[in-house]
Amino acid sequence: MNKIYVVGIGPGGCDQMTGIAMNALKDSDTIIGYTVYVDLVKDTFPDKEYLTTPMKKEVDRCVLAFEEAMKGKRVSMICSGDAGVYGMAGLMYEVGEKYPEVELEIVPGVTAALGGAAVLGAPLIHDFCLISLSDLLTPWEKIEARLLGASQADFVICLYNPSSKKRHDYLQKACDLMMQYKSPETVCGTVCNIGREGEEYQVMTLKELRDTQVDMFTTVFIGNSQTKEINGKMVTPRGYRNV
Amino acid sequence: MNKIYVVGIGPGGCDQMTGIAMNALKDSDTIIGYTVYVDLVKDTFPDKEYLTTPMKKEVDRCVLAFEEAMKGKRVSMICSGDAGVYGMAGLMYEVGEKYPEVELEIVPGVTAALGGAAVLGAPLIHDFCLISLSDLLTPWEKIEARLLGASQADFVICLYNPSSKKRHDYLQKACDLMMQYKSPETVCGTVCNIGREGEEYQVMTLKELRDTQVDMFTTVFIGNSQTKEINGKMVTPRGYRNV
Repeated sequence: MNKIYVVGIGPGGCDQMTGIAMNALKDSDTIIGYTVYVDLVKDTFPDKEYLTTPMKKEVDRCVLAFEEAMKGKRVSMICSGDAGVYGMAGLMYEVGEKYPEVELEIVPGVTAALGGAAVLGAPLIHDFCLISLSDLLTPWEKIEARLLGASQADFVICLYNPSSKKRHDYLQKACDLMMQYKSPETVCGTVCNIGREGEEYQVMTLKELRDTQVDMFTTVFIGNSQTKEINGKMVTPRGYRNV
Repeated sequence: MNKIYVVGIGPGGCDQMTGIAMNALKDSDTIIGYTVYVDLVKDTFPDKEYLTTPMKKEVDRCVLAFEEAMKGKRVSMICSGDAGVYGMAGLMYEVGEKYPEVELEIVPGVTAALGGAAVLGAPLIHDFCLISLSDLLTPWEKIEARLLGASQADFVICLYNPSSKKRHDYLQKACDLMMQYKSPETVCGTVCNIGREGEEYQVMTLKELRDTQVDMFTTVFIGNSQTKEINGKMVTPRGYRNV
């Protein structure tokens, strides 16, 4: 049967992939992905056929993967982080309805929330939410409701896509919403270029985060009411009781 | 400097670990963990010293790691899934305040939400929450508020620790709460023994999930309003607009 692996390659280079992900790429004739991700694996697997499509052409990329698989090639579609967290796995199933002969195998990876958390210390630990601030496919009202609901219920919140050229004030707007329920002194953190050259992190308060400019390569963490700073790291306890 | 790696080993055996995690274990003299996790890595690294402590003795396990590191040993503390998601990373920083000579390096891994999602198809994809139903360290009222808040804001929800001997009806209670805002027809999924022998998944409605008995090795996924079943898999679209 024709098969496509949809592979999360983790935040950076090949040493951040799982063994299963490495084996999937080894087993493939053709590796498909956005140019930046292809460049992260090319050196480790030089003998593969590589096909790329530009950003925002995700449907075309999926169709390309299925068309190559239909030719009898073993294909890997690669995604940064995890294939199933703001990744290509969902769209592959949707496009795949037209290609019942092709089997999909999803190979998980370390998403930016987990990779970034490890850099910052231990900000997640307990119940948390991931929220993307991109309103390209989601109405802003929905994002707003999530920021408010998650803050009110004292979740740790991790923000993906906190900023872009068109959305330079979205993080500020998000912080103002979260401060309706979270203290301005809530411990927060940012990590940019997780697992890649130029990796940097910062720990700060929610009030300070509000006035911080971040780029699209940054992942943002907002603590819960128990999160604290320990020796410059962001740490959330396991719960609300001391045991 | 004395160093401890806090390593997420992923959901199952060693091929589900990242390269960085494998290198951390290779680099260690002593590997510490709960017995079940130690058994998952012992065959791959037979020449290490292994120390185990029973479940619910997490603080003792952390102290043991720091004491071994203070003897000059290179130590890895291993956790199932990710070290920073209901894992040991946070407690290690807390206990570590007493051991300023010891440096911590957190090595992320594939948590059950990501591993289970890959088995089910693509249930997460978009904004989601992780909620643990264990009320050992968290008051039930807090868990209840999170289930309600996350449901009202239409998050995909992933439940950890959905059941135990003492908490056999917690999943049912959680489903009743979520159904205050989510349709009983919401697409849901369960996965047990992720990445291990006996891995099994099921896709069902929220109404059906309410009357399903799960064990402590099961991770539970509740879709958002857009989540659908495609050829027996649980798939959430990337957003609310078709592009």
